[in-house]
Amino acid sequence: MNLSTRRSFFKKAAIAGITAVSIPQIISAAMPQHHNKKLSINVGDRILFQGDSITDAGRKRDALGPNDQSALGTGYAFLASAAMLNKYASKNINIFNKGISGDKVFELADRWDEDCIALKPDILSIMIGVNDFWHKKNGNYEGTIDTYIKDYTNLLERTKKALPNIKLIIAEPFAVPGVKAVDASWFPAFSDYRKAVKAIAEKFDATFLPYQSVFEEAQKHAPGSYWTSDGVHTTIAGAQLMSEAWLECLK
Amino acid sequence: MNLSTRRSFFKKAAIAGITAVSIPQIISAAMPQHHNKKLSINVGDRILFQGDSITDAGRKRDALGPNDQSALGTGYAFLASAAMLNKYASKNINIFNKGISGDKVFELADRWDEDCIALKPDILSIMIGVNDFWHKKNGNYEGTIDTYIKDYTNLLERTKKALPNIKLIIAEPFAVPGVKAVDASWFPAFSDYRKAVKAIAEKFDATFLPYQSVFEEAQKHAPGSYWTSDGVHTTIAGAQLMSEAWLECLK
Repeated sequence: MNLSTRRSFFKKAAIAGITAVSIPQIISAAMPQHHNKKLSINVGDRILFQGDSITDAGRKRDALGPNDQSALGTGYAFLASAAMLNKYASKNINIFNKGISGDKVFELADRWDEDCIALKPDILSIMIGVNDFWHKKNGNYEGTIDTYIKDYTNLLERTKKALPNIKLIIAEPFAVPGVKAVDASWFPAFSDYRKAVKAIAEKFDATFLPYQSVFEEAQKHAPGSYWTSDGVHTTIAGAQLMSEAWLECLK
Repeated sequence: MNLSTRRSFFKKAAIAGITAVSIPQIISAAMPQHHNKKLSINVGDRILFQGDSITDAGRKRDALGPNDQSALGTGYAFLASAAMLNKYASKNINIFNKGISGDKVFELADRWDEDCIALKPDILSIMIGVNDFWHKKNGNYEGTIDTYIKDYTNLLERTKKALPNIKLIIAEPFAVPGVKAVDASWFPAFSDYRKAVKAIAEKFDATFLPYQSVFEEAQKHAPGSYWTSDGVHTTIAGAQLMSEAWLECLK
């Protein structure tokens, strides 16, 4: 159905209180077990969230210890941290967020020694790519899809070399069509970045987190604008959706 | 066991990865069904969090719409909002936080027309009392336990008169002994405030949220300092604990 038909459907559904499936079911549907390798949380684990503005989510940049709210921002990384710190209370875990707004893969690479390797994470979650596509699209960046694949592959080879036992969660960049920044001109070119990330996740034996599928399923409950403010950045509901999907990567 | 024995127990438990019960079990144990009346969330419901600094949790004071992260702060109210906005995506709910740091009951009363009645909440959650006790104790306030009971009762009578169909969640103030601000001198006097709140909740047919019991149960998993930074304000783990307990008040 088109956008206006869909809006009308949602309006009716909202009035009637109809919900075909629950959010946990959305996440299971979008993340079939065989696509995923669930990770264990062990005592003393250090967990690092890396990425761009979606991960950053307004975190304070000053050097702060792990498990500090202001250092974790107010997005999915914070929400997932709150859930983990509660659920694994006896496991003495340490969680860091080093996402930086606007970053592309090469910018992660520039700060990787300090913002990843030195932190010695046991679990590293990365979501990067929407700016690699978007900044190229709007003429502010020269890198192509090939640059993205090469830079991302190099970054992970470097990571595995420095931290051979690291466990990786690699999240698919997502874009929600019809919401502000994201229009039809994003597709199918943006999908190449998504496919590339999935292939990279497989190559590095990472747990793949299919956020595009999660947001597509979520739109069966409420329109895209309920989940993202501009097609790329999350509302509170979208951040919680991302957090719950992220937590599904754990055993 | 005393604090040092307990710390040693937690250390051993953490090393061994022992967890007697899960956090959801903590919450069920602390909140037996018969002590509670679960509330439904209906389409279009307006939900208001009211209280002191624990509810405030750094929210932005500027006039902002509902469901805005910065307007909801970064504490239990935000975490519970994120969960609700996700779970009830098709219900078009509107959530507000009007907690203000340092408030006692009479200060809620001073701003009640604007910060409660005018917002026409369908569900009102209040947690207030720790400052009524604490500021009296440190000599910065004259009000006694009787003042607290009288002010709180008047506030709720006024609320029910203006909004006869309002559904109330009344949360027990809590204090975690042995963590910074909270020492033995708080007890048993502080417990009078807790008992008073429970009686008030019963009188007004509210859903009672026994936070002291929740935090006591949580200390079987990790020490008080894991859940609160000073005995009164929450860490991330404590805020998530409060959020999960709050959500247990819903059907």
